[in-house]
Amino acid sequence: MTGGALTGTLPATVRWEDGRLYLLDQTLLPAQTRIEEQQDLQQLHDSIRRLAVRGAPAIGVAAAWGLCLAVRDKQALPREALLAALREAGAYLISARPTAVNLAWAVGRMLELAGALPATLDAAGIYSALCAEARAIQDEDVALCAAMGEHGAPLIGDNTGVLTHCNAGAMATAGIGTATAPMYVAHGRGVKFRVYTDETRPLLQGARITAWELQQAGIPTTLITDNMAAHLMSQGLIDLVITGTDRVAANGDVANKIGTLGVAILARHFGIPFYVACPSSTIDLATATGAEIRIEERGAEEVTTFGGVRVAPPDIETRNPAFDVTPAELVSGLITERGIVRQPYTDNLARLFA
Amino acid sequence: MTGGALTGTLPATVRWEDGRLYLLDQTLLPAQTRIEEQQDLQQLHDSIRRLAVRGAPAIGVAAAWGLCLAVRDKQALPREALLAALREAGAYLISARPTAVNLAWAVGRMLELAGALPATLDAAGIYSALCAEARAIQDEDVALCAAMGEHGAPLIGDNTGVLTHCNAGAMATAGIGTATAPMYVAHGRGVKFRVYTDETRPLLQGARITAWELQQAGIPTTLITDNMAAHLMSQGLIDLVITGTDRVAANGDVANKIGTLGVAILARHFGIPFYVACPSSTIDLATATGAEIRIEERGAEEVTTFGGVRVAPPDIETRNPAFDVTPAELVSGLITERGIVRQPYTDNLARLFA
Repeated sequence: MTGGALTGTLPATVRWEDGRLYLLDQTLLPAQTRIEEQQDLQQLHDSIRRLAVRGAPAIGVAAAWGLCLAVRDKQALPREALLAALREAGAYLISARPTAVNLAWAVGRMLELAGALPATLDAAGIYSALCAEARAIQDEDVALCAAMGEHGAPLIGDNTGVLTHCNAGAMATAGIGTATAPMYVAHGRGVKFRVYTDETRPLLQGARITAWELQQAGIPTTLITDNMAAHLMSQGLIDLVITGTDRVAANGDVANKIGTLGVAILARHFGIPFYVACPSSTIDLATATGAEIRIEERGAEEVTTFGGVRVAPPDIETRNPAFDVTPAELVSGLITERGIVRQPYTDNLARLFA
Repeated sequence: MTGGALTGTLPATVRWEDGRLYLLDQTLLPAQTRIEEQQDLQQLHDSIRRLAVRGAPAIGVAAAWGLCLAVRDKQALPREALLAALREAGAYLISARPTAVNLAWAVGRMLELAGALPATLDAAGIYSALCAEARAIQDEDVALCAAMGEHGAPLIGDNTGVLTHCNAGAMATAGIGTATAPMYVAHGRGVKFRVYTDETRPLLQGARITAWELQQAGIPTTLITDNMAAHLMSQGLIDLVITGTDRVAANGDVANKIGTLGVAILARHFGIPFYVACPSSTIDLATATGAEIRIEERGAEEVTTFGGVRVAPPDIETRNPAFDVTPAELVSGLITERGIVRQPYTDNLARLFA
């Protein structure tokens, strides 16, 4: 069961087939759906850097297969030379997005496996083992998404209006996404519902990617600008909010794309449940509360331009926080692969990891 | 005292000088500040239609001067022919934006004056009287704005962070705006504060116009995307919200640009006062509550594109409500030219008009 199979017509973000690595170039969405074979490590490095593949899980899977690609044509090398090439390739891939935790994690896991293989294994055997490990990383991601989907799907019934923000979708994973997973599972079961997608300024991931992937999958989808959510809620059109997250603190505070906090406050005002979907690996017990999470401030040009067109006066001051922190008390539940975690989060998250 | 004088470097939206009518072409903001003489009625009609002049008060003032322009070169006509030309010009101007209440109101007032003039008055005399009436309409708008500014300015102190949404600014009036009036007055008194301007999707009036006019006037201004307001409030940067409105119902419900309701809910959540500035003519006692206000739904292309750049997949469904309704209980006060009206609105608004 792959993300593609579950969601029908969606292309896979990352695909390894017959020793070849293919990526969907997400920078061209929604205008074009171009699947591009990655001929070599340089091309993959460039694809990761320019966000052709994006989303922590999808980047991790792409990097794992990237290490297979790195040694695919080097099976004639002596074992030590091949392992050296592998380490070099790993460092090179990590340099494409040095702050992407899943990228470094996937590379580390692959290198660890390679280092632990029996000394008797030749280069061809190492390549085989690496491919098996990359497949395992991909399958695990698919399974995590599917499990979140199973746990979250019962939240969605016939006629439910679901609001989501940014893209925590199939396009960010190797599977059916995180926030979108319950939607794909419910849709697969024939539930008739509608998703309202915030366009998600400044980078418009909601308009460009989420609206596109849900539309491709045949889920009725309505695109709105971020500032329309309150009005739609006031009209009774939204029954449920599901977003993704970049990090959950030990007390349940949720860091996610800018605008998530506003959606959570609106949902509370209108008595609408607000859920956050994430694999348990996103929950960071070492971060006590959201106050410890540093909010990245990005460049002004994302705010002063729209689709490449300048919309603001020259030299205007801007703020551009990439994320915000939603306090745990606004979160109805965390949809994880192990089930839905609810308040009190400090106790229940500790128990989840016990 | 004109808006231009009060705000320093801001060009007037509408200016009549030596028998000539000049408009600032707001469609070119913020890239260009072009003042264009309106050579004839056709040009003015086109300027109104394509939003070169916008904002209910500014459109009304432009139309009043437009009727002077219409008969400026016809002072040799017999009285009846001139009055007929005037009526024709009025109907033609109204057709430029048939739903703009202030446009029809200003034309009606000018025609009523012309009809009531002594039969002995010749065409030159009628022209003079029309110019005096247009001047009065403009001066009244300037005075309304100034009075709102006087009443609202004490809300803004040193270090106040003020959030505004859309453009209810000098560019929408002949004076210092409605929502912006307290800001310009406080700034003129040397108060040191900062305005945070929502960009206001889909048409970006905040980014294109409000940020520009405040910047021109020397008021420290920070442009943000609509979905950043909650985060800035959570960081303690916003102490006060002031917006404009298109219509206030008898119970104090406020119809305004889409996104206003969300801002009001966020303000309530963070305990931040939320004010709405409007001349009392915007308060419609014939509308009992906001539920009676029809919300205009505009075309999909405003949501799916910007500046000719498509940002959403083909055939995606959208919603595009132009306005939303903020319930009276979220409104801390209405800043009118007669003072700040507070809850209970039903009683206090009735008293305002008694």
